[in-house]
Amino acid sequence: MGGVSHLRPTVSADERRARIVVSRIVEPGDVDACRLVRDHSAAALLRRLRAGTDLDKPKVRDWSERVSRADHDHLMERAAAVGARYICPGDDEWPCALDDLERLEDEAGDRRGGVPFGLWVRGGGHLGRLAERSVAVVGARASTAYGEHVAGDLAFGCGEAGFSVISGGAFGIDAAAHRGVLSQGALTTAILASGVDRLYPPGNTDLLKRIAESGLVVSEAAPGCVPSRSRFLVRNRLIASLAQGTVVVEAALRSGSLNTARWALDLSRPVMGVPGPVTAGSSAGVHQLLRHPGTVLVTDAAEVIEHISPAGVGLAPLKQGPTSPRDRLHPRSRQLLDAIPTVMAASSQSIARAAGLSHADVVARLHGLEHLGAVVREDADRWRIARP
Amino acid sequence: MGGVSHLRPTVSADERRARIVVSRIVEPGDVDACRLVRDHSAAALLRRLRAGTDLDKPKVRDWSERVSRADHDHLMERAAAVGARYICPGDDEWPCALDDLERLEDEAGDRRGGVPFGLWVRGGGHLGRLAERSVAVVGARASTAYGEHVAGDLAFGCGEAGFSVISGGAFGIDAAAHRGVLSQGALTTAILASGVDRLYPPGNTDLLKRIAESGLVVSEAAPGCVPSRSRFLVRNRLIASLAQGTVVVEAALRSGSLNTARWALDLSRPVMGVPGPVTAGSSAGVHQLLRHPGTVLVTDAAEVIEHISPAGVGLAPLKQGPTSPRDRLHPRSRQLLDAIPTVMAASSQSIARAAGLSHADVVARLHGLEHLGAVVREDADRWRIARP
Repeated sequence: MGGVSHLRPTVSADERRARIVVSRIVEPGDVDACRLVRDHSAAALLRRLRAGTDLDKPKVRDWSERVSRADHDHLMERAAAVGARYICPGDDEWPCALDDLERLEDEAGDRRGGVPFGLWVRGGGHLGRLAERSVAVVGARASTAYGEHVAGDLAFGCGEAGFSVISGGAFGIDAAAHRGVLSQGALTTAILASGVDRLYPPGNTDLLKRIAESGLVVSEAAPGCVPSRSRFLVRNRLIASLAQGTVVVEAALRSGSLNTARWALDLSRPVMGVPGPVTAGSSAGVHQLLRHPGTVLVTDAAEVIEHISPAGVGLAPLKQGPTSPRDRLHPRSRQLLDAIPTVMAASSQSIARAAGLSHADVVARLHGLEHLGAVVREDADRWRIARP
Repeated sequence: MGGVSHLRPTVSADERRARIVVSRIVEPGDVDACRLVRDHSAAALLRRLRAGTDLDKPKVRDWSERVSRADHDHLMERAAAVGARYICPGDDEWPCALDDLERLEDEAGDRRGGVPFGLWVRGGGHLGRLAERSVAVVGARASTAYGEHVAGDLAFGCGEAGFSVISGGAFGIDAAAHRGVLSQGALTTAILASGVDRLYPPGNTDLLKRIAESGLVVSEAAPGCVPSRSRFLVRNRLIASLAQGTVVVEAALRSGSLNTARWALDLSRPVMGVPGPVTAGSSAGVHQLLRHPGTVLVTDAAEVIEHISPAGVGLAPLKQGPTSPRDRLHPRSRQLLDAIPTVMAASSQSIARAAGLSHADVVARLHGLEHLGAVVREDADRWRIARP
């Protein structure tokens, strides 16, 4: 996963033209279509559809009705108008991380999600390289100020560590993540459920255009396609498979971002969640996710990067509370220290009684602690804790 | 674990008297003392200390100095003044869950924590029965309103489900947990680091007295003993071993409640944590704990009880967001539904195009959806979503 594919042959110009047309005909992520194109070719599929064979199969009927409306030159014009290109497996830019989706094709059941046979990409980024070192940060559209703050922070930190951030370009957590990494000056990729010329949601048009300047806006759906609920769900598999790991920041129960996490789990990609108050429904889906044994709770970018990095690489700094010189004392000295008064000095005999240590031991240790500046002797045998 | 011990012989009256005296001499949880009493007897240990043997060993020196000050009758008077009793392994009330601590004696290193040779208990409860079905709810003294709310709720729910709640009687989360279970009318146990006659902290005196009415206040330390930092740490092992599982509600990094969780992990007892905002230092320790593979995130009492119950028993109700009739539709019908306009009705041809489904299929499904009341036909072939 994560590398740039160089070993596969580039598809021929004719096959590329056919795939562009097929991308308009079949639903994004349709497993049958992905397989037919991979095992035979888009050109062969188009020939069959144009010949009108297999029309008794509902899906072939769906496709056949669209053949006449799918036009290569028209699609390329729409793409060119927004500076978009079409990339296929075997292209230098193709991210081989997507190949992992093949493993899920057989278990898909009624869920769709083959390896895409091509992607529409818009922007200055290089998809293969962006995906190679990337983190998906996803979450609820109906986010809270807390979630947006954490998503932005997390994305910023990932960018700072040299990772790009992949998300879905939606309102709420997605937008906060994109903005966070952009504000760091790093690259980000938005994967859309609509065509790359139909920036969705319209309220994020400016953000998505900014993303495309240095990064990428990507879609499996052809230019002109509108988003739909089912297209969001298959889109999620691209986010989960492109990134080295997926972090869910805020998600209610049944949130779409949990679907992305499910894809990532099915792909054995690291899945992480940022917790929130258990009293907030906006984090209930994340908490449910974090109760899944395959997931990891994260609180910042360092923990995300540690989790997606190979063992021993990218370790997060150990979090520790304030330490004190006390930590380095012998257990008996710590036990003694707890028994020394802070205000009114006491005799070594009374301190020994309170500490449960023998008098001889206490006297020796008191002199040691005095030498360290931890205790003060007020006269021959009156001791108290030194004031800081 | 969890059961009431009946197989062990009751200790003799002489040995019980000796243990009471030894409980005043040795530090609570001293592994060496616990072992000497178990393998030989408290009576034998007292004889050696009174004879003044082994005074070259620092610990024996500590103990010897205290022998003259430890008096059985005096201790029993102090205990009687607050209605406390002394229980030993083999007594009907003794909780055999404590025996698990023996496993940790060899790994203890400088950490202390043997099986206690006796406990001071104050109150109307029966320790063995209280421990048998119990949850430890612990957390920070410096708690937030959020943490106290959740701890109280959690404890209430545990009480409602027939579990007692064990905690440390401290300010903050401990107190909120005790109060929560008391408000449910269920029983709770406070394990103190001080003697059961020295209710600590003094600000919780009323609460601790209320706990003792129906439940118990318990200590390994003899009456009169003051709490100390090291006594809190060994006290924590009693909380962790008595309860069937430990929940940490709020804890900063280095919080004492993480020490309780560590004891529970070492005992292979279930350890749970309630998350909070990652921006709050008051939950940072819980989040660190929850990143440990052996721990489980919980958000309510049902999840706690599910986790500490045998497989298939005490299952928490599945949390799910709002469901809709849409969930039960065929995937193609859901895909169709997403393409039907909500305001301006559209023709089946245009809907089929938007849905990416064949016209014949769409017509059949539209009639089905009309029958279900999900869509409305405005005239011969104009369809829109039904308004709720």
